[in-house]
Amino acid sequence: MNISKLIVNTKLDTTSPYYLQIAALIKTKIVDGSLTVGEKLPAERELALLFEVSRTTAINAYRHLEKGGYVSIKNGSGTYVSDRYALESKTNNEIPWPQLLKPYIHPSMATLMSELMVSNVLEDKISLDAGMPDPNYYPIDIFSKLHRDYLAELEPRDFGHIPVHGYEPLRHTITQMLGSEGIKCYSDEVIILSGSQQGLYLTARVLIEPGDYVIIQAPTYLGAIQVFQSLGARVLSLPQSEDFPFEILEDYLTRYRPKLLYCIPTFRNPTGTVMNAGERKKLIQLAARYRLAILEDDPYSNLYYEDRPPASLKALDDYGGVIYLSTFSKILMPGLRLGYMVAHPSFIHRIILEKQYVDLHSNNISQWLLDLFIKEGYLANHLIKMRGIYRNRRNVMTEALNQSLKSKLSFQIPQGGFYIWCKINENISLKKLLQEALKTGVSFVPGEAFYAAPGEDKEFRLCFSQHNEEIILEGISRLEKSIGKFKKSQFSISKREVRPII
Amino acid sequence: MNISKLIVNTKLDTTSPYYLQIAALIKTKIVDGSLTVGEKLPAERELALLFEVSRTTAINAYRHLEKGGYVSIKNGSGTYVSDRYALESKTNNEIPWPQLLKPYIHPSMATLMSELMVSNVLEDKISLDAGMPDPNYYPIDIFSKLHRDYLAELEPRDFGHIPVHGYEPLRHTITQMLGSEGIKCYSDEVIILSGSQQGLYLTARVLIEPGDYVIIQAPTYLGAIQVFQSLGARVLSLPQSEDFPFEILEDYLTRYRPKLLYCIPTFRNPTGTVMNAGERKKLIQLAARYRLAILEDDPYSNLYYEDRPPASLKALDDYGGVIYLSTFSKILMPGLRLGYMVAHPSFIHRIILEKQYVDLHSNNISQWLLDLFIKEGYLANHLIKMRGIYRNRRNVMTEALNQSLKSKLSFQIPQGGFYIWCKINENISLKKLLQEALKTGVSFVPGEAFYAAPGEDKEFRLCFSQHNEEIILEGISRLEKSIGKFKKSQFSISKREVRPII
Repeated sequence: MNISKLIVNTKLDTTSPYYLQIAALIKTKIVDGSLTVGEKLPAERELALLFEVSRTTAINAYRHLEKGGYVSIKNGSGTYVSDRYALESKTNNEIPWPQLLKPYIHPSMATLMSELMVSNVLEDKISLDAGMPDPNYYPIDIFSKLHRDYLAELEPRDFGHIPVHGYEPLRHTITQMLGSEGIKCYSDEVIILSGSQQGLYLTARVLIEPGDYVIIQAPTYLGAIQVFQSLGARVLSLPQSEDFPFEILEDYLTRYRPKLLYCIPTFRNPTGTVMNAGERKKLIQLAARYRLAILEDDPYSNLYYEDRPPASLKALDDYGGVIYLSTFSKILMPGLRLGYMVAHPSFIHRIILEKQYVDLHSNNISQWLLDLFIKEGYLANHLIKMRGIYRNRRNVMTEALNQSLKSKLSFQIPQGGFYIWCKINENISLKKLLQEALKTGVSFVPGEAFYAAPGEDKEFRLCFSQHNEEIILEGISRLEKSIGKFKKSQFSISKREVRPII
Repeated sequence: MNISKLIVNTKLDTTSPYYLQIAALIKTKIVDGSLTVGEKLPAERELALLFEVSRTTAINAYRHLEKGGYVSIKNGSGTYVSDRYALESKTNNEIPWPQLLKPYIHPSMATLMSELMVSNVLEDKISLDAGMPDPNYYPIDIFSKLHRDYLAELEPRDFGHIPVHGYEPLRHTITQMLGSEGIKCYSDEVIILSGSQQGLYLTARVLIEPGDYVIIQAPTYLGAIQVFQSLGARVLSLPQSEDFPFEILEDYLTRYRPKLLYCIPTFRNPTGTVMNAGERKKLIQLAARYRLAILEDDPYSNLYYEDRPPASLKALDDYGGVIYLSTFSKILMPGLRLGYMVAHPSFIHRIILEKQYVDLHSNNISQWLLDLFIKEGYLANHLIKMRGIYRNRRNVMTEALNQSLKSKLSFQIPQGGFYIWCKINENISLKKLLQEALKTGVSFVPGEAFYAAPGEDKEFRLCFSQHNEEIILEGISRLEKSIGKFKKSQFSISKREVRPII
């Protein structure tokens, strides 16, 4: 029997890997007898075409079936349905993982996005999507030199277990560094984290019970929304507006009694906006009055390209409710996996209890090297250099956008950070535009990814940090081409329609 | 007013740091007027004596009060109660963290233990407690050489973000390494973790909902019990017995329908016991029948000092239900923070979704160096060396115990791992013995720490891996002295009495 007939109208979904779904489908057909013992199955190439997946996925599907005893793969000949004997002992035996796993709370449109991003990617694609520093400027040589020069000074036990809250010298160094940024803290208010993502997770773990409300500024960092939602929080969104929407915030505070506000006050991902000094003070006052904890995520404040941004919320915190979070991933390199949190000692104490379950403590070698890097003054110099480089790239990208897409896009020039937040003035679906852009060899992130609830589908984020000026110009030119492919006629029909799913 | 009168009968507890509790107490007395503005408070030394805490704790308490505006510290003069004006604006303002934090599920007696361990510690204490490799044998020089020799081969992007499941070459290397140990797996069945503790945590996160049952073998690794309990699991204990207690297990399975069994089949922490090959097979059959997932924690199987131990449960797994967990902390160095999990692809897929929230991915530098270390054959050699060293230490410790404490202790000689599990034949409370031992300058872990429910208080764990033969001998001699301090008369009165707390 031809397998292609069996899989008519079969749709793969994103709940489990494709190859497992394909294997499961074929297995059903073997078990119910549609495919008979000894029958030759399609070649891997054909199977890949049938399901519109990669050849590797097809190979993995067959391998998985082979492991389960359902098929046998004969090299050079093909894949055949195995005999029943091997089958039966297996069929009843395999553990039903989907029934054992906890129900999965599906946070926002992350999976959909990652699906979009991997499909139809050109070899020389220019990524204007991921918010990462330019790898060409990772200070690897300096880290390597520090490793060479200082290794002898370490005690063997520095490579053993260290306290949950981190490598003591690094905590001390960070405390001093923060002092110069107006955040006065003792070292028992600081904990080293395995990236600031871990700070989001742990904060949510110790504060949020299913059904609790959390306020975010929409749009905001996807990873935060996902963590809150995955732990069962109900997310309230403060809309984007010229001034900070205090009235809406106060309404939320009285109506829902949320415990936590998550915000990125400086060069927010994805909008690049900065909360001004007056708004910061007012926010602290309001939060103190309502006993609202604020999770201040601050990865970008050292990447300013004009004036220094206003003091952080933590620097103004006179009620002990600001949980300050930052990371070295954006200013140095993500592979270090190091971030840190500053908060009230009672809060840090509880975070420590939680972190010991998650990973005992963060990586020693990274902490040791980073401490040296800061102490020897390399970080300060690196920041000066990177600000210059990124300022240039921002200028090049905004000028290119103004020249070639001025009539079709609107955006604000960001004063720091990595991102330009664009709004398209045409009636194009951003998802369709992304597919077109990927074909042309450029990528961006559709705005929807930064919202807890589906938005207008008119916005997208461009990142200017990862590539040099030449590549940025080529990227914007490709983007222009992709937008150009939509004819006037197409604009009108792609109006957002919501149809019932029946 | 003398502050010592105010704190009569005040007990510090372990729910928050001591200095905060002391500060809170003094604050109450300031706010209620018992302590008046301008009054001089006890010197730090006195305060430390009053509360029986360290001087640092006293200093921190005053600093915390100063930060809150309640006292002012005048250098060289002392600490004084501040004037009311500063006070009042603060008093109403501070965020009430204890009300905001989620209720804390207090797992077992971990805190109590850590309290015991830090009190009255002599400078030259010999730790026979922590289960760690000897830092003097951490292969730091080789890691350093690999760093020097291979750094040039890395791409800058290797220091950026990598996939959640880990550094691809290391996953491949681990897959091959496992193949030689009888565990056949594809690389999509492997995920790199930030230590195997993370594997315990993530497994519990994706499987356990509050109220779910988890089976453990009692006694077992404390960190596992804590993770299960902190996520709301109800822990069922299989008692220790000559043969594996299959009848009790089956009773648990039918009675409670647990999802998960946690076990360390080889050189179990703390008992050092090994499940034999027949028991392993039978366990797999039973688990398959009841659709029971098994979390096999296997940190020690490469540290065997006699014959190779039997094949792992994962090697026998024909129903896809064994989640295999191991780490490089015990065989190399804990500071690497690297472990790994091998499980069914459906399970790994879900673990990946969870791990991305916790830390995005594990540290790149450690993964890269570890991969080289294994590939160049250093791991195999290191294991041969360490087996020799630890075998010797085990011999020395067991002989010393037999010579000096034979009549008072009973234990089995472990065939591998780090631990000797001792049972004391006298009526001494292990907690009292520990206090005595700490005064004599030696430490061990009382058995209670390895149980989900209070046990007999007759057992304790000694670790022979951390120190050389000479120190081991001195440690056992100190232990003998501590036991000797208990007179015959004391043995009888320390019988375990349970009195109501009123």
